[in-house]
Amino acid sequence: MTKKLLHLNAFLMSTGHHEASWRLPESNPYANTDIDHYLNLARIAERGKFDSVFFADAPALFAEVGRRPSGSIEPTVLLTAIAAATERIGLIATASTTYNDPFNLARRFASVDHVSGGRAGWNIVTTASPDAAKNFGLDDQPLHADRYERATEFVDVSRKLWDSWEDDATLADKASGVWADSSRVHPIEHVGKYFKVRGPLNVPRSPQGHPLLVQAGSSEDGKQFAATYAEAVFTAQQTLADAQAFYTDLKRRAAGLGRDPDSVKILPGIVPVLGATEAEAREREEELDRLIVPEYARIQLAKTLRVAPSELAFDRELPADLPDEDEIEGAKSRYTLIVTLARRERLTVRQLIGRLGGGRGHRTFSGTPEQVADALESWASQGAADGFNVMPAVLPSGLEDFVEHVIPILRQRELFRTEYTGQTLREHYGLSRPSSQYERVLQEVAS
Amino acid sequence: MTKKLLHLNAFLMSTGHHEASWRLPESNPYANTDIDHYLNLARIAERGKFDSVFFADAPALFAEVGRRPSGSIEPTVLLTAIAAATERIGLIATASTTYNDPFNLARRFASVDHVSGGRAGWNIVTTASPDAAKNFGLDDQPLHADRYERATEFVDVSRKLWDSWEDDATLADKASGVWADSSRVHPIEHVGKYFKVRGPLNVPRSPQGHPLLVQAGSSEDGKQFAATYAEAVFTAQQTLADAQAFYTDLKRRAAGLGRDPDSVKILPGIVPVLGATEAEAREREEELDRLIVPEYARIQLAKTLRVAPSELAFDRELPADLPDEDEIEGAKSRYTLIVTLARRERLTVRQLIGRLGGGRGHRTFSGTPEQVADALESWASQGAADGFNVMPAVLPSGLEDFVEHVIPILRQRELFRTEYTGQTLREHYGLSRPSSQYERVLQEVAS
Ligand SMILES: Cc1cc2nc3c(=O)[nH]c(=O)nc-3n(C[C@H](O)[C@H](O)[C@H](O)COP(=O)(O)O)c2cc1C
Ligand SMILES: Cc1cc2nc3c(=O)[nH]c(=O)nc-3n(C[C@H](O)[C@H](O)[C@H](O)COP(=O)(O)O)c2cc1C
Repeated sequence: MTKKLLHLNAFLMSTGHHEASWRLPESNPYANTDIDHYLNLARIAERGKFDSVFFADAPALFAEVGRRPSGSIEPTVLLTAIAAATERIGLIATASTTYNDPFNLARRFASVDHVSGGRAGWNIVTTASPDAAKNFGLDDQPLHADRYERATEFVDVSRKLWDSWEDDATLADKASGVWADSSRVHPIEHVGKYFKVRGPLNVPRSPQGHPLLVQAGSSEDGKQFAATYAEAVFTAQQTLADAQAFYTDLKRRAAGLGRDPDSVKILPGIVPVLGATEAEAREREEELDRLIVPEYARIQLAKTLRVAPSELAFDRELPADLPDEDEIEGAKSRYTLIVTLARRERLTVRQLIGRLGGGRGHRTFSGTPEQVADALESWASQGAADGFNVMPAVLPSGLEDFVEHVIPILRQRELFRTEYTGQTLREHYGLSRPSSQYERVLQEVAS
Repeated sequence: MTKKLLHLNAFLMSTGHHEASWRLPESNPYANTDIDHYLNLARIAERGKFDSVFFADAPALFAEVGRRPSGSIEPTVLLTAIAAATERIGLIATASTTYNDPFNLARRFASVDHVSGGRAGWNIVTTASPDAAKNFGLDDQPLHADRYERATEFVDVSRKLWDSWEDDATLADKASGVWADSSRVHPIEHVGKYFKVRGPLNVPRSPQGHPLLVQAGSSEDGKQFAATYAEAVFTAQQTLADAQAFYTDLKRRAAGLGRDPDSVKILPGIVPVLGATEAEAREREEELDRLIVPEYARIQLAKTLRVAPSELAFDRELPADLPDEDEIEGAKSRYTLIVTLARRERLTVRQLIGRLGGGRGHRTFSGTPEQVADALESWASQGAADGFNVMPAVLPSGLEDFVEHVIPILRQRELFRTEYTGQTLREHYGLSRPSSQYERVLQEVAS
């Protein structure tokens, strides 16, 4: 039996995921708006035959611009620029269902799918930051449950729009002068709680049918949403046991909804910090942690925990009386993950800041390339992951190191591809191309 | 005295502006979603040293998909792909102020400006098509006056957002660990009739300060809007006298608002149909007109005129009792232009369809390269234009012909550049880079 190959996504972020990475002598502190930096990263990831690259996003500026490179190129713009500079690698970006509207966003992702020849993916998020609401006419963010309800209708409308042109709607019949068959281009006539959209979309169906649907929230609502729609899931998990529980739960939910569990790929995040020896890797991690400005990091932590910064004493543990997840209207699962980590390991605020500095709650792993490969293999072989969201602490060096030193080991173990076998993002993830729902209905009527 | 150089924009649209262009044997009928087609066009335009390329847009599908290639790649995506394939040419796209929201759109144009090194331009439109409203939760479009009122506030908010980071806000001070000076990144705290936006924008100030602001509506409200904000204006004018009147009026309005009239460039559209002889050019134009399917074209015309198609008899003139411009809530100036043209020349519906087939109301001019160059020079030298919006009837051939045969003549006459002298779109148009309004306020306080 051949082993199942891992899927690898490269989660890219300016100078790297470690919040102090920009302070290293090697780092370009203007990387956040430097398109050449991103093209270089994408080319490195493609050289490594990653399934995809990914860019996070929120329609708001995090308040502490002092802390780290802030403000970034809008991700669908970034994906398009990268599409032109690469051939095969998948292109995933975050966009918010809370602060967009489905016609424009569905059209934009379909457009990226067209220009990239079928490589677009959408990380569907509901946006946990309350700052975003204030950029869109609201005083505070909508409730967590309402955000997910809107997200559900948003994706429903988007899928109707993507399907509104049947694949063979265009005839291009020059002789008779008929360009498309209007009976195969369908108004969607959607009327719901959040949206009223007539359609059809103003772009023909895209190479992948529709972009890959990715999701990244792990609350109860988030998991149900993922089980319903997601084809790939990003998740932050600190321990094997937690990751296994998440994996089993999500696959079971998908099966319960009539989906093939294998059609949902689960990718926990990992922040690898590599060294030729374990000691060297640890030294590297400590060097980065020493560059964190704790005052800035505390402001962010206090925001997430919904307390005043002064309530967080650097050399004490977290206050005992923090709110329950139920009371959090922002990022529920991230909140719980951080509090659980701090309590489980009895970390002081300073230690917690160090642990979050690398990957904001994602698992940081420092070690040799062999050790990192072992860590990946061990989770994948024990039912915790279909692949990984690789989040280099420092960019571009951390990605280069991963491609040059970890991927060859995974290949030796027959755990990762040597060449791309497909053209589209869907093909890289082993997922099939959906047919148009309107076409399916018509075929059923005809048969 | 050296002559003033013309500014030339290439208005690009799938297989060309003539509605039947897709039916020519040479045309790629799938050009509307073929990114390579657009990259090729942009490279041809750049070879000709055009100031810019431009893509029109509306967030709706025009109903008659039978008629001509319909549905298109979202223009900011298209601009980004082109940015990667070109070096100097400016990149302008339409986006609607009626069906977008300022935070997301301002951010997207700033992003295109970043990735292109300062080549982005935004054609600000209020979207006249009532179909668009139905894709955004509305039953019909907002009133014309309300659309322009919203557009005014939209641009105001956008400019605040683009200015929210001062140019030197980023310190990137690795030693002290301070990335940006938060006192130079300003919340905009905008509260108005249509929008409430806190800001700041989540991307640093872009190379041009903000994208070039372009406008293309010629109603009374449209002209006032252009005089206030536009740095370049596209307009459809059929006669020299009309173009002169428009030019004089708009420059005077700009001056009245305290602006330098030369800081608003006026570019009437022209659809050149070229031939080695005048007869050959006319033959080419007639060949295209013969390929129009009149039934399709009549549906569109009836929509614009707000009558039933059956009221338009092919071999009669337009009905006598059409509405006044006042009653039109869609595209006011386009409506008046079409009705005036039909009445002035006493055209039958069939003839009118022919006249509109080339450029939808823009001036079509068939002739030799010399004659086309004469036509351009004559309008520019008589106070009707600062340059032209060149709208090839057939693409790519019409653009190639223009670059190879017309531009050299303009150069001989010292009317057009031989090389780019600037890097940014603003520099091509001879416009200065605006400083941040927040910086200006602070400087005034300090002095
Ligand atoms: C790998 C990963 C990437 C994420 N990227 C984004 C992002 O780009 N934008 C965002 O608003 N949230 C992002 N999130 C956060 C989640 O989408 C979600 O908002 C958060 O986990 C809270 O969701 P929940 O309340 O369902 O737990 C990401 C989460 C993970 C695990
Ligand atoms: C060259 C040119 C390009 C235009 N491009 C667009 C466009 O892309 N989208 C759009 O909705 N309107 C476009 N228009 C139309 C105008 O912006 C405007 O909607 C129309 O002229 C009616 O405006 P008015 O009512 O002020 O006359 C264009 C007009 C011209 C002259």
